[in-house]
Amino acid sequence: MQGVIEFIERKRDGAAHAPSELAEFVAQVRDGTVPDYQVSAWLMAVFLNGLTEIELVSFTDALASSGEIVRFGKPRTGNALLTVDKHSTGGVGDKTTLVCAPIAAACGLRVAKLSGRGLGFTGGTVDKLESIPGMNMSLSTDQFLRQADEIGIALSGHSLALAPAEGKFYALRDVTGTVPSLPLISSSIVSKKIAGGADAFVFDVKCGSGAFMTSLDDAMRLAETLTGLSASLGKKSSCLVTDMEQPLGEWTGNSVEVLEAIEVMSGRGPADTRELCLALAARMLLLGGAAKDGPSSLEAAREALDGGAAIGKFAEMIRAQGGDASVCENPSILPRAMKKKTIEAPRPGIVARVDALAAGTAVRALGGGRLSKGDAIDPSVGLRFLKKTSDRAEAREPLIEVHYNDEAAFERAAPYISAICSVSDSAERIARRPLILKS
Amino acid sequence: MQGVIEFIERKRDGAAHAPSELAEFVAQVRDGTVPDYQVSAWLMAVFLNGLTEIELVSFTDALASSGEIVRFGKPRTGNALLTVDKHSTGGVGDKTTLVCAPIAAACGLRVAKLSGRGLGFTGGTVDKLESIPGMNMSLSTDQFLRQADEIGIALSGHSLALAPAEGKFYALRDVTGTVPSLPLISSSIVSKKIAGGADAFVFDVKCGSGAFMTSLDDAMRLAETLTGLSASLGKKSSCLVTDMEQPLGEWTGNSVEVLEAIEVMSGRGPADTRELCLALAARMLLLGGAAKDGPSSLEAAREALDGGAAIGKFAEMIRAQGGDASVCENPSILPRAMKKKTIEAPRPGIVARVDALAAGTAVRALGGGRLSKGDAIDPSVGLRFLKKTSDRAEAREPLIEVHYNDEAAFERAAPYISAICSVSDSAERIARRPLILKS
Repeated sequence: MQGVIEFIERKRDGAAHAPSELAEFVAQVRDGTVPDYQVSAWLMAVFLNGLTEIELVSFTDALASSGEIVRFGKPRTGNALLTVDKHSTGGVGDKTTLVCAPIAAACGLRVAKLSGRGLGFTGGTVDKLESIPGMNMSLSTDQFLRQADEIGIALSGHSLALAPAEGKFYALRDVTGTVPSLPLISSSIVSKKIAGGADAFVFDVKCGSGAFMTSLDDAMRLAETLTGLSASLGKKSSCLVTDMEQPLGEWTGNSVEVLEAIEVMSGRGPADTRELCLALAARMLLLGGAAKDGPSSLEAAREALDGGAAIGKFAEMIRAQGGDASVCENPSILPRAMKKKTIEAPRPGIVARVDALAAGTAVRALGGGRLSKGDAIDPSVGLRFLKKTSDRAEAREPLIEVHYNDEAAFERAAPYISAICSVSDSAERIARRPLILKS
Repeated sequence: MQGVIEFIERKRDGAAHAPSELAEFVAQVRDGTVPDYQVSAWLMAVFLNGLTEIELVSFTDALASSGEIVRFGKPRTGNALLTVDKHSTGGVGDKTTLVCAPIAAACGLRVAKLSGRGLGFTGGTVDKLESIPGMNMSLSTDQFLRQADEIGIALSGHSLALAPAEGKFYALRDVTGTVPSLPLISSSIVSKKIAGGADAFVFDVKCGSGAFMTSLDDAMRLAETLTGLSASLGKKSSCLVTDMEQPLGEWTGNSVEVLEAIEVMSGRGPADTRELCLALAARMLLLGGAAKDGPSSLEAAREALDGGAAIGKFAEMIRAQGGDASVCENPSILPRAMKKKTIEAPRPGIVARVDALAAGTAVRALGGGRLSKGDAIDPSVGLRFLKKTSDRAEAREPLIEVHYNDEAAFERAAPYISAICSVSDSAERIARRPLILKS
């Protein structure tokens, strides 16, 4: 590059970067030859002046190409079905991957997904699955590819050096107030998906107080950007925008979310989790070529779920990754917290709010999440929501069960726990926001 | 401070910082407790979103207070005359301080000025005066104050820890594309002046291709900001906006500029240097209370210059700082370059342009300036301009004399030297821009 200062100045002045220039900058950031203070000045200029569509595509491409890219072989079934990945922008109680991935694989797609660990107030798929005894969530590239080929499903942590430049940008954004920028968010998400190697992506953009995008407008814009960006980089994709005002389903934690996923795959479990898992799986089937249209994709997903194919595929995956698949029939082998406290309604009324952000923060304080990368977590703690928004509660009726191990951790979590539910005096029914805001 | 990230976010989102918040941030930057990448993100947010007037005043105040502040005693003459400082935003061939400071001191003001060394394409007063044999340009605080009291004039390099936080911000701005920002420039200038301790400041805002501000509009805005900011911090000030399309005067370099200053103080020297020195000195006299109005201040300055009082004061200063004051009668004791080449007009015509930026860059390449702090310089090299804009030149008539020592340095400077002068075929007279654009 001619000069990093001139590069920063161009973005500062609202000019566009050429693709080759962005590629060189990203490579230099990956190699550590550009000092952090220059990267962060550029990030703030991007935050305030934006990226053009062409810049966004080039930048995302450069991030994706900054490290290894997973390469799948021909589809295992020899047919035209695609390898599909599914991504959630992060919510509280979101265990949908544990259900929709087995459904899609049971219907013939190759589902190969590299997930992150939880950070902040949202949980991570890797942490949740690791609560299953024996489960290996650090597959090598070879294991990951072979398993995806052999049984059609592989879920693993990032053992690979996927999009390493993106990691450097992300770490700096986190400490320089440049996280909530549409081009920076979307390039971060799509670059990692591209590096993950799938043909098609289903995005679940969460919207509400417990999500990154709190307004529907912002969530819609992100959804459009994600699909447009994926298309420009040669990938099929589809987006759902879904509610995250309150946590999804009945449980939030790690082992307790595996428990709920198994419940749903066994024909039980809460209706909202079931509904969203089916919608996401249907979208994966449609996108991957396993269904012709919306109604038939939903029908196929429902059959795989209710007919037992999904839980069968889930068990197959657990076995392939060294885990104890008996968990599917006997979830009591999952780690369980030793103590339980119940939060009761202070007075009769309608539950006006179950705050997802407070719930996620409470679980983290109980030990179920982490503040910094590398922190250990307690897989057994969690919250159970006995009432959700718009439910009626009588005085002293239980609202939340807190499952925990350590009194000191409970004390740290207590202020968040007490902020989760609010009960309204009003006898009027409170409208519940639809779960799927935009499909 | 609550949190640096939140602080950055507020400026990013266009909100205003409270004075106490800015003071805390500046103190943390001085102490090195805020990492550079956070400071540079904030600087870019300020570049793009600006500072309110109140923020600008608070920020400048915090920078000025981040280290030692020079404290002068009562005026030495016991009268109401003020201590006056003079600041140029930086130009090529600008030796005015060497003349206007002695004039003002000769008229009874206390002139106490801490100057920088040259960096980039503009020279520094400290470097120029150091070319006088024996001259000490690193006075201690005590020496500086005592000399200003005893003889009314002291010019020294920054031996003091003036506005140390400003230095940290400046170093980062230089490498993150955040230099040309009106609030950042003006706070940088005024904070150092405030720390320098004078009661009143005369600003010479240079405007043109050889200056920081290339357009008159920008220069006027900077001038207004500098005087407004000084007033808000309790200081008197006044601004001239002056031309820097072409170098000032006949010589550019270090010892050669001292030579020209002595010429001017001896009743000779180029008319433009003389005019600007008188205008600046007159403004200092008016501001410091030594003259009642514009005409009388100019008259007093002219008398001090032409009557020999100014050069007498200059000699007194040189002696006080250990230098050889015989230079005033015998400038040939100054270091002189050993070699000389002459650049001639390629054809007859009118000199359309003498490019100040090219001239300054050429002198630096000859060894007369520095690219990095701490580089040694060759005080003897320089350029002499035999023709200025709008002068007529015959074919092969000398335009520029290049005074140098080293052939390799000459070769490095040659491309810049050849770009300095352009001669127009047109017989039409080319208008010369007025020297003083706004007084």
